[in-house]
Amino acid sequence: MNSVRAFAPATVANVSCGFDILGFAIDAMGDVVEVRERNEPGLQVVSITGDGGRLPFEAEKNTCAVAIKAMLDELGQDIGMEIYLEKGLPLGSGMGSSAASAVAALVAANRLLGEPFEKKQLLPFAMVAEKVACGAGHADNVAPSLLGGFVLIRDYHPLDVIKLHVPDGLHCTLLHPHFELKTSDSRSVLRDSVSLKHSTIQSGNVAGLIAGLFQEDFELIGRSLRDVIAEPYRATLIPGFYEVKEAVKAAGALGMGISGSGPTLFALSKGEQTVQSIIDAAQQVYDSIGLGVDTYHSAINTQGAFVLE
Amino acid sequence: MNSVRAFAPATVANVSCGFDILGFAIDAMGDVVEVRERNEPGLQVVSITGDGGRLPFEAEKNTCAVAIKAMLDELGQDIGMEIYLEKGLPLGSGMGSSAASAVAALVAANRLLGEPFEKKQLLPFAMVAEKVACGAGHADNVAPSLLGGFVLIRDYHPLDVIKLHVPDGLHCTLLHPHFELKTSDSRSVLRDSVSLKHSTIQSGNVAGLIAGLFQEDFELIGRSLRDVIAEPYRATLIPGFYEVKEAVKAAGALGMGISGSGPTLFALSKGEQTVQSIIDAAQQVYDSIGLGVDTYHSAINTQGAFVLE
Repeated sequence: MNSVRAFAPATVANVSCGFDILGFAIDAMGDVVEVRERNEPGLQVVSITGDGGRLPFEAEKNTCAVAIKAMLDELGQDIGMEIYLEKGLPLGSGMGSSAASAVAALVAANRLLGEPFEKKQLLPFAMVAEKVACGAGHADNVAPSLLGGFVLIRDYHPLDVIKLHVPDGLHCTLLHPHFELKTSDSRSVLRDSVSLKHSTIQSGNVAGLIAGLFQEDFELIGRSLRDVIAEPYRATLIPGFYEVKEAVKAAGALGMGISGSGPTLFALSKGEQTVQSIIDAAQQVYDSIGLGVDTYHSAINTQGAFVLE
Repeated sequence: MNSVRAFAPATVANVSCGFDILGFAIDAMGDVVEVRERNEPGLQVVSITGDGGRLPFEAEKNTCAVAIKAMLDELGQDIGMEIYLEKGLPLGSGMGSSAASAVAALVAANRLLGEPFEKKQLLPFAMVAEKVACGAGHADNVAPSLLGGFVLIRDYHPLDVIKLHVPDGLHCTLLHPHFELKTSDSRSVLRDSVSLKHSTIQSGNVAGLIAGLFQEDFELIGRSLRDVIAEPYRATLIPGFYEVKEAVKAAGALGMGISGSGPTLFALSKGEQTVQSIIDAAQQVYDSIGLGVDTYHSAINTQGAFVLE
């Protein structure tokens, strides 16, 4: 019986000033999905590991199955598949966990079917799964997990996804404190309107970040990692946020922000030299407030999801 | 007696989605200022041509004199200079007229003094003049007029000005209808706050425009020339705005927006091939509403202000 396994990386969405429009993929970790041909029609989630028993097996709720179903619907085919999900990413962490599962499932299933779709064409199916998982069909996690690198979602109507240049040596450290923050809570603290002044400041920083990536100007990237729209509200939900930010910047980080809707924080740095200092500095703050933290670090992933041969 | 003449180009500020943070310089026209040594201290505006007698000669109101005064104050010197201003730009048009005068004056005076400042260092002095001329010390006209090219003002505190890549062949057509729009009126129609949704859309388009410039992707530049924050309000003050926009886009323009605070409109195109069609299409609309229009077109100026040898 034919089977394909695929890997999809973790992602950092928003990236401070890029609220709802930017995301990037990291090498450090991700999810693996195996898809096997099945003799009868329908999708069956056969096994899920690494989730502590929390993810649903029902095909209409499981993001892998939902994504594959959307793809098969587009093809007008009712092909049977078994799904085996190996979670590498913690749930509800802000590292694009649901996105990675959906993307890995799509890349595996697409290969199993003889690749009727190009990689980029899988995006809308992953967004259907995000809608089921998160309540909103955002693309700022699924697009970088699928395509790799730094990705801009310029528009949704129609979908306009642009892969940006990533300078060599740009490194990301993730700090995942041991508590869970619901995306819905993290979104509910946002305001429906922003001042013209803050909107303009945010635009300036987004423009600076994009220019910094293309010009490979690490200092400019660092200066531009400033979010005046979401961070001031979300930071109040994340213990130690400003202390950690101050500490990691003093330790050499270019800047720090909230990964997705949190509670994971991401810090960017030039190369790996300062990573251990950044981790030590953050660890010290979390120790002082009695909160455990897992840390990861890696280069920016530029490949995106791929089939494991 | 020593004298120096300098030229500073016209500029398009805002550039649709880049409200208050982006501007670019154009080759088509600009202002010329001659500065001459004077035997006694103090600045004297000796002549102004091309302004129809409307600009002030008083040193504390004339943008050329105000800018040079700010520079001399920084040097702690009270050197006498005569100022001869040749206006090439129409006043109150939204083409950076006051900025070009201040910048040309600074570049000439700086050379006369033996260049105590690098070009970029003249920017704060030009902003002092903008404050006198427009009531706000914006840099989105003076920075591109001084430095040339497409310029991002990422931040004002401290000032962070970034020169962006400009693709070869990017061409600008300016449409200057025969009526005057006060900057204060154009600013007063803006709202103090914007919806989170519109702020996010604006950010996406700014990011798309910057990426389009670096990737030399003319279609992306065109798609990104969309302003949901200022244009919907300002367009109501500009007769025929939407008709002209539709006509020039149908004629091959990548996109069109308001130059600065208007009433001049700018259209970008790939190369010069479509320029005549763009001008004809706009002319037809202005004819139909009985409004005269002056048109100009040129490549993006990448040099900025310079001394005329």
